[in-house]
Amino acid sequence: MWRYDPPLDDMRFTIEAVLDAPASWSQCPDFADCDAGMARQVLEQAGRFAAEVLAPTNAPGDLHGCRLEGGSVRAPPGFRDAYRAFVAAGWPALACDTADGGQGLPKLLDAALYEMLLSANHAWSMYPGLLHGAYRTLKRHASPPLRERYLPHVVSGEWLVAMALTEPQAGSDLGLVRTAARPHADGSVRIHGTKIFISGGDHDLTDDLVHLVLCRLPDAPAGTRGLSLALVPRNLPDGTRNAMSCAGLERKMGIHGSATCVMNYDGATGWLVGEPNRGLAAMFVMMNAARLHVGLQGLGHLEMASQNALRYAHERLQMRAARRADGPQPAAADPIARHPAMRRTLLGLAALTQGLRIVAYWCAVQLDEADHHHDAARRERAARFAGLLTPVVKAFLTHHGFQGANAALQVWGGYGYLRDYGIEQCVRDARIALIYEGTNEIQAIDLLMRTTIGDGGAGLTELLDVLAGDVARCEADPALALYAAALKRHCDAARDATAALARRADDDPEWPLRVADDFLMGLGYTLLAWAWARMAIAARADPDAAASARRLASARFGTEWLLPDGERFWQRAANRDARLPDVPD
Amino acid sequence: MWRYDPPLDDMRFTIEAVLDAPASWSQCPDFADCDAGMARQVLEQAGRFAAEVLAPTNAPGDLHGCRLEGGSVRAPPGFRDAYRAFVAAGWPALACDTADGGQGLPKLLDAALYEMLLSANHAWSMYPGLLHGAYRTLKRHASPPLRERYLPHVVSGEWLVAMALTEPQAGSDLGLVRTAARPHADGSVRIHGTKIFISGGDHDLTDDLVHLVLCRLPDAPAGTRGLSLALVPRNLPDGTRNAMSCAGLERKMGIHGSATCVMNYDGATGWLVGEPNRGLAAMFVMMNAARLHVGLQGLGHLEMASQNALRYAHERLQMRAARRADGPQPAAADPIARHPAMRRTLLGLAALTQGLRIVAYWCAVQLDEADHHHDAARRERAARFAGLLTPVVKAFLTHHGFQGANAALQVWGGYGYLRDYGIEQCVRDARIALIYEGTNEIQAIDLLMRTTIGDGGAGLTELLDVLAGDVARCEADPALALYAAALKRHCDAARDATAALARRADDDPEWPLRVADDFLMGLGYTLLAWAWARMAIAARADPDAAASARRLASARFGTEWLLPDGERFWQRAANRDARLPDVPD
Repeated sequence: MWRYDPPLDDMRFTIEAVLDAPASWSQCPDFADCDAGMARQVLEQAGRFAAEVLAPTNAPGDLHGCRLEGGSVRAPPGFRDAYRAFVAAGWPALACDTADGGQGLPKLLDAALYEMLLSANHAWSMYPGLLHGAYRTLKRHASPPLRERYLPHVVSGEWLVAMALTEPQAGSDLGLVRTAARPHADGSVRIHGTKIFISGGDHDLTDDLVHLVLCRLPDAPAGTRGLSLALVPRNLPDGTRNAMSCAGLERKMGIHGSATCVMNYDGATGWLVGEPNRGLAAMFVMMNAARLHVGLQGLGHLEMASQNALRYAHERLQMRAARRADGPQPAAADPIARHPAMRRTLLGLAALTQGLRIVAYWCAVQLDEADHHHDAARRERAARFAGLLTPVVKAFLTHHGFQGANAALQVWGGYGYLRDYGIEQCVRDARIALIYEGTNEIQAIDLLMRTTIGDGGAGLTELLDVLAGDVARCEADPALALYAAALKRHCDAARDATAALARRADDDPEWPLRVADDFLMGLGYTLLAWAWARMAIAARADPDAAASARRLASARFGTEWLLPDGERFWQRAANRDARLPDVPD
Repeated sequence: MWRYDPPLDDMRFTIEAVLDAPASWSQCPDFADCDAGMARQVLEQAGRFAAEVLAPTNAPGDLHGCRLEGGSVRAPPGFRDAYRAFVAAGWPALACDTADGGQGLPKLLDAALYEMLLSANHAWSMYPGLLHGAYRTLKRHASPPLRERYLPHVVSGEWLVAMALTEPQAGSDLGLVRTAARPHADGSVRIHGTKIFISGGDHDLTDDLVHLVLCRLPDAPAGTRGLSLALVPRNLPDGTRNAMSCAGLERKMGIHGSATCVMNYDGATGWLVGEPNRGLAAMFVMMNAARLHVGLQGLGHLEMASQNALRYAHERLQMRAARRADGPQPAAADPIARHPAMRRTLLGLAALTQGLRIVAYWCAVQLDEADHHHDAARRERAARFAGLLTPVVKAFLTHHGFQGANAALQVWGGYGYLRDYGIEQCVRDARIALIYEGTNEIQAIDLLMRTTIGDGGAGLTELLDVLAGDVARCEADPALALYAAALKRHCDAARDATAALARRADDDPEWPLRVADDFLMGLGYTLLAWAWARMAIAARADPDAAASARRLASARFGTEWLLPDGERFWQRAANRDARLPDVPD
């Protein structure tokens, strides 16, 4: 039946053998105490929490959902207890600096922790999911008194944080935000307005919670340059309730356990975080952390769907599979895991899960190095790489999280469509991740317009050079020729499209907007080509022959069967001549 | 808001201009009275029923679902009334022979009717969805007294029909069916067993209903060659209730308005349909009709998602779109229909809907000609083509129905994830169609193993010759060169893969099973290449300049932007060397 086995082996393989993160940590003075052994311990503990405490709350959370009672939101049964255990174990503070009361561990381990939490219960994990981004936002942008009052509670997770951006008329277009902030004599502001889609806007997991609200001061310029950010707590420092309330909960396709609130602010007291009219910059610190978090949701769903589909396919007997000379003997009906169509699905899920984990974790390594590497040039490069990788991780991983869950559902046949088997919840939950924290289309525009064309393609070319560096490593081993060829082909295609778009977009400014989605998907597949090559290189060096063979088979399957899905994206991205007419009325 | 506008213009264009179905009818003596004018009248009436009577029951059906009360199933509010109106208007008898009390109209019009019903309410349309298949099964295989007793009620739709195949251990593998049929002295049988996933197994839409039950006589051979088919009515001829009952309703991801029953037969009285142990042959008559019906579900969802997304995208204002010299003037925020990413989605949905309608309706034309064409050779060819097209229509259209609904959801952004906007129900409902009536993987195996390799590729090659016949028509018009090239490329790839698989599969019997899914998808895209070419040819001849331009733009978008998605399938299908290892334990 549906359950979660933490993929600790694959995680360790990724962190140690593929990415050699311990070597990176040794270059970061803040991580002097962190090594592979400690990382394994952390992951084991996190896996136990995810599997034993959190996973059992997932199906009940979907069934019961959240309830709004007397103006207060109640999370589903078990959610509050699981959260208290989470805080008691110190998990929120994992990657916060020791100076702030955190454990000072790498963001990579926090990413691995969240992958597990999100596999076990996506909806629950959204409540603490913004803590780290809020920590960074407050640390960097809040005034000292505000920081002093709120930062410790955010580090410990004792108080949770909600991000309040969206309004009915302002979704992807934050420039249309109208919520008003009126300055008050004591330096605070009064917030008036309505926000929608506020995840965890109210709940009973913690005694207090804090909103970070995008708002507009009087006489602020129109558009995004007139936005400010305010911290608005549910309870005021004097203990009274702030003038804010949850006016409704949305009925959604999935993530029923996450409280999606309509929030009214009726003169609620808040304090600006960062400069007036510079709220978007402060908010982007949080948004960037949230984008990685959402990408991990895709990875979490993919892992969960993959491992459960594999278990089911070994149990379910239907029809005899075609026999091979070297295969098992006939039976009345074989496990469906033996049938070629199911093998394709299962091998594809496994290869994608492993490959995308490498991509996501590599992004986390960049974030760690951007903050902590001893070499300034390396910190800057890592920050550039993280900027390029983050939108891909958000969009590409959530795409595959949803599509992978959907492919897995097919393994159960008709049972997959029933609510009792777990996989259809996985599909419904996974769907939101393509939308929130910037739709996948917005991520693609960010990647191509702002980050790639913004610097003339220099940053992405530098990243592609790093990926292509592994071509030579594969070429040095005849058994890895397949990977060398595939990686080279994808990197070349990526470089050509990047150069063409950066150079020639000026005389057809709509061209990159027409192909941004292809560009992001193409880069995603190029990263997969690299990830499977790295996986094969690491597997070749693995002394455990069985594990090595299994991982080589997986990397090979991905390269042979799945990479062909990616080539059309670069072709389309480079084709400026395809017409994109107006849509009919 | 979410609503259904019957796409009568596109339907007429497909039936008359693209497929020239009236010319086909003129070759069928049974359709002597049918012409384009009559077809238009029928479709207008059907559209009015779908939009005005049926569509309003769709969201309530999802919300309330079916209930099991005192052993009887109650369909959602409005379902029974809508069905009575449907019967009163004579719709079930549309394509039944006049000799049987039907209207004797082409199956093509029945397909168009069902496309509309399925757009308006998928779950409701499943109740009458099996009527035509049951009609054909009974007509061909039932004994005269059985036919006399039941056929008129099935033709009129006064009694509905359920198909009872699946058992817990027997899903795709019907050879594992255990339900027992014990012969009785009066020539009837007594049925003992449990069936699951019985759509419409019980309900309150009609006063009686009839099950067609796959079962096994004593001493029958094991496997599919020991299966018999029995007709089992809810009420016996003497008015008493038969020994069958609904033991439970499944809780599902979608189609909540369709009663998915667990059925117990405790010595229920039935009568064999067809010869003992030849039940599968009789059942396949019904299954084939059901497969076209399920393909139309995909088309119905695609149309519904497409037209509602388009309306919403014209209303919703977010961000300024990039300006073109010939475009409209700047505004604070543009309709999202102007943004390139949304244009791609909307144009893609429209092109797929129009292209796949051509494919589905062409399949229906083949079914009509197979039964009614005056020329025996043409009847046989049409039957072969219908056999090839049916699995593609089932699998390829349901794939795009689900993926199209999912792509459309993204147009609504966060609102798309809410239950109040209609599109998430569309996604959930559309998902089942990839599973039931033979999973899409089973369709692919049927297409490649049985129908294509079964005759050495002759039938498919004949079909491809017909498609390729339009290459020359496109080449004759310089404006259609794009379509000629695309169609030729796809037909050549299809022919090469077919020849290779038919010729070389003997020494690697697993090869076609490894690539069957690719083969079906490849053929689907080849049919789309043909459909868009035909659409362009017909649009070029359209005297309405605006309509002509709109349709040419759509066909061109499909050919330029979507066909590249299809080429990888033929590449993979032809690649016998890619390894497909066993999956790990």
